[in-house]
This record gives sequence, C-alpha cells and structure tokens, in this order.
Amino acid sequence: MQIAVIGGTASGTAAAAEAARRAPGATVRLYEQAPHIAVGACEIPHFVAGEIQEARELVTLTPEAFQSSRGVETAVRARVTAVDLDAGTLTVDCDGDAREEPFDRLILATGARARRLGLDGEDADGVFYVRTLAQAEAIYAHLDEHDVATAVVVGGGYIGLEMADALRQRGVVATILDPAGRALARTLAPELYAPLGEALREAGVPVRAARPERFETEGGAVRAVWTDVGERIPCDLVLIAVGVEVRTDLAEALGVEVGDHGALVVDEHMRTAAKNVWACGDAVAVPRAVDGEAVHWPLATVGRKTAYVAGKNAAAGWDAGTAAFSSISGAIAVKAFGYEIAKVGLDLQEAADAGLDAVCAQVEHWSRVSLLPGAQRLCVRLVGEKGTGRLLGGQLIGREGAALRANVLVPLVLDGWTAARALDRLDLIYNPPLAPSVDPLLVALVKLTKAL
Amino acid sequence: MQIAVIGGTASGTAAAAEAARRAPGATVRLYEQAPHIAVGACEIPHFVAGEIQEARELVTLTPEAFQSSRGVETAVRARVTAVDLDAGTLTVDCDGDAREEPFDRLILATGARARRLGLDGEDADGVFYVRTLAQAEAIYAHLDEHDVATAVVVGGGYIGLEMADALRQRGVVATILDPAGRALARTLAPELYAPLGEALREAGVPVRAARPERFETEGGAVRAVWTDVGERIPCDLVLIAVGVEVRTDLAEALGVEVGDHGALVVDEHMRTAAKNVWACGDAVAVPRAVDGEAVHWPLATVGRKTAYVAGKNAAAGWDAGTAAFSSISGAIAVKAFGYEIAKVGLDLQEAADAGLDAVCAQVEHWSRVSLLPGAQRLCVRLVGEKGTGRLLGGQLIGREGAALRANVLVPLVLDGWTAARALDRLDLIYNPPLAPSVDPLLVALVKLTKAL
Repeated sequence: MQIAVIGGTASGTAAAAEAARRAPGATVRLYEQAPHIAVGACEIPHFVAGEIQEARELVTLTPEAFQSSRGVETAVRARVTAVDLDAGTLTVDCDGDAREEPFDRLILATGARARRLGLDGEDADGVFYVRTLAQAEAIYAHLDEHDVATAVVVGGGYIGLEMADALRQRGVVATILDPAGRALARTLAPELYAPLGEALREAGVPVRAARPERFETEGGAVRAVWTDVGERIPCDLVLIAVGVEVRTDLAEALGVEVGDHGALVVDEHMRTAAKNVWACGDAVAVPRAVDGEAVHWPLATVGRKTAYVAGKNAAAGWDAGTAAFSSISGAIAVKAFGYEIAKVGLDLQEAADAGLDAVCAQVEHWSRVSLLPGAQRLCVRLVGEKGTGRLLGGQLIGREGAALRANVLVPLVLDGWTAARALDRLDLIYNPPLAPSVDPLLVALVKLTKAL
Repeated sequence: MQIAVIGGTASGTAAAAEAARRAPGATVRLYEQAPHIAVGACEIPHFVAGEIQEARELVTLTPEAFQSSRGVETAVRARVTAVDLDAGTLTVDCDGDAREEPFDRLILATGARARRLGLDGEDADGVFYVRTLAQAEAIYAHLDEHDVATAVVVGGGYIGLEMADALRQRGVVATILDPAGRALARTLAPELYAPLGEALREAGVPVRAARPERFETEGGAVRAVWTDVGERIPCDLVLIAVGVEVRTDLAEALGVEVGDHGALVVDEHMRTAAKNVWACGDAVAVPRAVDGEAVHWPLATVGRKTAYVAGKNAAAGWDAGTAAFSSISGAIAVKAFGYEIAKVGLDLQEAADAGLDAVCAQVEHWSRVSLLPGAQRLCVRLVGEKGTGRLLGGQLIGREGAALRANVLVPLVLDGWTAARALDRLDLIYNPPLAPSVDPLLVALVKLTKAL
C-alpha cells in the first residue's frame, strides 16, 4: 500500500509521519516543491529582525533526517503537476524531469501561497512576499546588500505588523498600508486599538488607510508605492502581506470542492469529495466551535491537528479511518511593538455576521498586582451571547500576560461555557508578581455577566 | 433585619458588601479586631522585600470608605468575644469596653491565624509570624532598626519561600528549616524540584531537613535556633511560616462542626450547622472538584467566592438563599528566586491518598520558541487517572510562563476533561515570542496520554 503526501512545509510532514507510524507496512512518500521540508514560517519575522541568526534554523528537520527517522520517502524540489486518480499515478516534476509515481491513497497538504496584488511593478526588485523560506532569505539578503532606509508594508494583519516590527529592529522605518487605517483590524476590536496605535506612533510607523495602486520602479527596483488615494510613498523595500490563497489547482482537477472561504472542503475525517484523497493543513477549512461554520484558519496549531487526522485515516483506509477533527476555538496571538495581542473565538462583528445576538464587555486592569514595580495595564474584551449567556470569544492586549491568559478562554469557548459559570467556577491564580487578586479575565467576566 | 459579619480581613468585607448590596433594607455590621479591614496579606513578602513602599498600600479600603461606599457599619479594633444565638446578640470588645450588639443573621469570616510552634523562646524579640499587617510592619521595622545579617525561616511552604526571597532582597541570608528537606514540598513534586533547589543554592539559602526545637535568646532577643537534629543555627531573625489554624472558638461555641481538615464545616450555601449562621473565607472547608473531598484551602481566590455565596444567602435568608459554591480546582502559584511555580488539582501522592489510580507524565520544554533569545526551560508534570483518562492535576516550574499556563488547567480539572480530549481539542496559542509551536502543556499531554 502506497500513501503519497503532497506538500511538506509543516502539516505535510506531520501527516506523512503519522501515516507511516500507523501503517508500518505501507510505503509513504512525501513530495515538496521547495528545497526544504518542515519550515517554521512563523519564525520568519524573527529571522528578518536578526533575533534568529541563520535561515537554516527555521528548518526543523532535513529531508534525510525525516526519511531515516520516520521512514517516509522524502523528495524535495519535487513538484506534483498532475494526479491521475483512476490510474493511481502522480506526475512529479523534479528539476525539470517529469516522472510518474504510483499511489493508492493521497493526502493533499498543498497549503496556501502568499496572495499577489496583481499590480504594475509587483515583480520589481525589492518587492517581497512573506511566506516561504526562500522569500525570507531574499528579504534578509536585500536588507544586507542594499541601503534600505524606508519600507512600505502592504497589509496590517499580524504578519504585516510583525514584519514592520522586524524592520524597525533592522533600523528601517516602515509605513503600513491597510484599508482599515489601522493594524490588526481582524484581530483587535477598534476599542482595544489605542495602546497599539500609540506604540506604532511612538515607533514612527504610520498606518495609512489606503491600498497600493502601483509600484514605481527605477532600473528594475522599486522606488515608491502609489496609493489609491493618490499618495506617493517613496521606499527602498516593499513587503506584501495581504493574506494567503489556497493552492486549489490539483484538488479542483480531482473534483474536490472549494468553499466560499477559498479552502478545500473536507469532512471531519479530513476526507475530500474524491475517494482516497484526504487533505489537511492550510489547504482546508475547519469548523468553528461556536457555531460550526467552516472557516479558513491557516495556523500551524490547527494544521498540525488536521494533519494527524489525515495521516491516521489515510493509514487506516477510506471507510476505516475513525480519527476526527472537531472544531477550533480560534486562538491567535502576536507580539509586536512591545504588545501582546491575542484573540480567541468571535469578536462582536463576527458574532453578528454569524447571526448571533451578542454583547461585549471591556475592562482595563493589571497584569499583576498594581503595587508591584513593572505591573502593566491589560485590556480584556469579552463577547457573550444573549439568551444562552455563552462566552463567544475574547480579545486581550497588554505588554505582558495577554497571550497566555487568552489560552484560558480556549476550553471555555470550545465547551460553550456561560460567562456566569466561568465567573462562578474559575479559581484562577492570584499571586502578586504573577496575577492580581482578581484576574483580568474574571474582572471582564463580572462586566460581561452584568451586560448579559 | 440585621446581618452581622465577624472578621474583615478579606472575605468578611466581600461578604458584608454582598449582603448589603443584596438586602438594601438590612443593617449590615462588620466587626474586625485589627485596626484595618481589607488587608492584602499576599503582598506582605513584597512589602518586606521593599518592592511595596508603605504598609498602608496593603490596605485597599479604609473602614470609613467601606462604610460610606457599601453601606456597611464597620467597626475596627472590635473583637467579638461571644455570640448568643438565642438572644441574637454579640458581645463586642472595643478597646476594653464590652458591649452587646443585636443580630438576626450571622456570617463568620473569622479566618485563620498563623500556627504557633509552642517552643521555648518563641515569644522572643526577633521571632515573627507572617500573617497580619501588624506582623508585617513589625518584621519591616525589625529589619530597619536592627543589624540583621542572618535569619531562619521555619517552614518551606510558599510563604516561607517568598519570605526567604524577600529577606534576600533586603540583604539577609536565610536558612529554611523544613522537615521535608526541601521547599514547597506540598506544591512541587520532588521530580520538579531541581531548578528551584539550584536557585536556592545559588542564592546561598540552605534548606535543612529539620524542625526547630527551641529558640536561644539573649537579653530577650533571639540569637539562634536549635533544631531536632542537634544543630545550632545562629540568627538575628526568625520567621515562622508553618501554616495556619482556623479560629474555631466562636463557631464551636455555636455548635458548628470542625472537620478533620481543621476548618468549619459548611454546606454548598455556606451554611453552618447553626441556624442563621453562615461562614466563609479561610475559616471554611471547600470541596475539591476532582473527588468532592472537603479540604481546607485558605487562599484569597476561593475565600472571595465563598464570601459572595455567604453574603448573598445571608441577605436572602436561611432557607431562601440559593447561591451555591461548587468546588475548587485547587490552583496556586508562587514566584520566588526567579522561578514561577504553579499547581492545579492533585499531585500523584494526593491522588493516591484519595484512592485514585493515577499516573503522571513529566516533560521539559520551552516557554517560547527556543530559537529566540530569552526562551526559558519550562517543566510540566501532569497527573491523570487510569481507566477514565481524566486529568487530575498539573504542576509547572519555569522562569516564565508557568503560572498563567497553569490557569488553562483550571477549567479542564473542574470539568473532568480527559487528557486525550485536551490534547485533541485545545488549539493553544503559538507565536514565537509567546509560546512554542507545541505548547508545553500539549507536549505534556502527549506524554500523559501515552502513559494512560
């Protein structure tokens, strides 16, 4: 029995290793188009910032080590260009040589690529995306080899924000372009934005409410960004971080459905509509715990979980695989410009979009007992559902203690705890240098319970 | 209708405020024998260390402010010496003047006092307990007014450990005496002790496996501690932190039961066996979520919750009060000698004592992505029940990220999550400067799931 896994950035390696572990008699093959597998893409901003010295440190496993330790035949620089499901063959392009390889079961871990803008000048020198190791190395080399003083970061999401901070650490002054006119518009409610906005102002990083219209070049290199409000922003570097798009070509050719969310549709066993084809990782949509809605949530934490399910079930067989992926709480966090920012579940707008009758409560409290030196302000915003009283989500921002506190909300959101029950039951830690006598989460729950 | 609350350190004020809020027509009176109410006892080590400048900062509310803002008649330096339940009167000693005061409903928030050793020399100058504001001020003054070079801390529990660290910050070298021969014997499994033991060695704070036998004095001041292994430890200061004992005299006179745990027995509505007498705070025992066993768990986090229940129900009336206290997860944390140490639920020994068939799994991982500067080792030890697979508890130690991670275990322990479900469902945050790609909790859950 032969299991083929296409894509080995992160979830592909996890799926392949799991399949090999569960089906020791099978041949498991992994195909990755890049020169590396098991790349930690989340570390890219920290590599560009200079906190991580070498690009190779972002690679947790060589193909050789993966092959010998996990028993997975691993091919890099191997791009799968076609799949013949009836014949059970893949067409694999290895450095220009096309070959056919057999398979019985297939796992698509083809992930997503950085979204392009499709603008004039987008392919100029000095314009980069932030997704792959090769792109990270190119950004790093460009900063080393050129006299880069100013940059434009297109997109103020968490990657754009992290990259703006990384550039700051390299002495480059960035301007962020985001149509929302602020950073983290999808992660942080406007009512929580003030501290981050202030930190960006202090760092000299403006956020312009604009989209790029074209990139001005000179001798093939980018020189300025022209925006849709007619502004010309001179720059030596452009980073584009406007989200990702799922690689759907192979899947669509197999008849796999692509949802409105742009990702592959799978069932709880990570099965696609094509028999003996599973999918996982950044390529697939997963249900939210709060309302069961399938969403594209391309994070490593979830990708690893879907990969285990796909790997296990591919090892077991099409109708025999019982491993199931339930749903996500939707936890995400970023640290940039001195602030931790975290979100779990739905914000108020998302709740409204989901047809839920929601209210929110926001408090400002302390990360630890305020009498102690170093205690920091921490803002917590919680969203609950009227009627049921269910906790739907929360957002936190502070210089410390925001992200790990958000994790406490994960089981609550997954299990649909009511705010009242959480307030009543959670005996969260109090110790002056670690947490105030009433934890900020509980302070917010008091307010949310009243609002509900 | 008149509600009397005896004791106003922390839970008494919370209970009185809640009763006044719920029964606006009632007269609520609070009696506190000390000169202050609403004292933050957990901050004492940080006051002694010099991190908090003034003792009065530990008092969050003056009697006058409490009275005017919450409508509670508040008497300080007022010790209740007797309760006549049939007559509905209290005997109150105010600076030597005894007076009778009426009540219809009574809340005992009489708390617990520092346990005495009953040894020769225990009342000498320079021997202190660590419980009240007056004691904290006395320790502070002693350090200011005397040339204190060395100290003995009797008891290596969390207060003893915090005080040894506070003394270190004041330039005083402490020796800890604890029969266990190590600090935090009840909070930290021996297998997790190495980093703390090393930190204590580096700080020059020995932990002796011994008990004090007598205190040697000279001119009324302590000069040395003689131990039960025949050692004489010279010192200028002794701090005794060997736990607390519940003040039971008033309650016992009313026929309230005191359990083997040493605390008052109450039902889920915080009612004692004496009609119209409720109790709360450090005076009462509460059930553990894991097995329902009543335990004495004198922490502010839980005391506040029992206080709300007692206050609400006293306002409603003996049979009308429906507020209920369910159970505790048993979360506790301390930061000392550079380490965060946290525990939730049961350790392996406690599980065995409770008749549970338990196993444990221990891992050492990272607080954040290890490639980043400043990432710290974090040890996690989880305990699960064979058969059911339930998570029974966990312990963490690390220089950062231990305490807030422990909070994630709180809802899991309260709701009896299995380790397998936690591993399967929790999409905990991953972001390089905040948490590694697989959170240490999940790494430990992988190992525990295998062990189960």
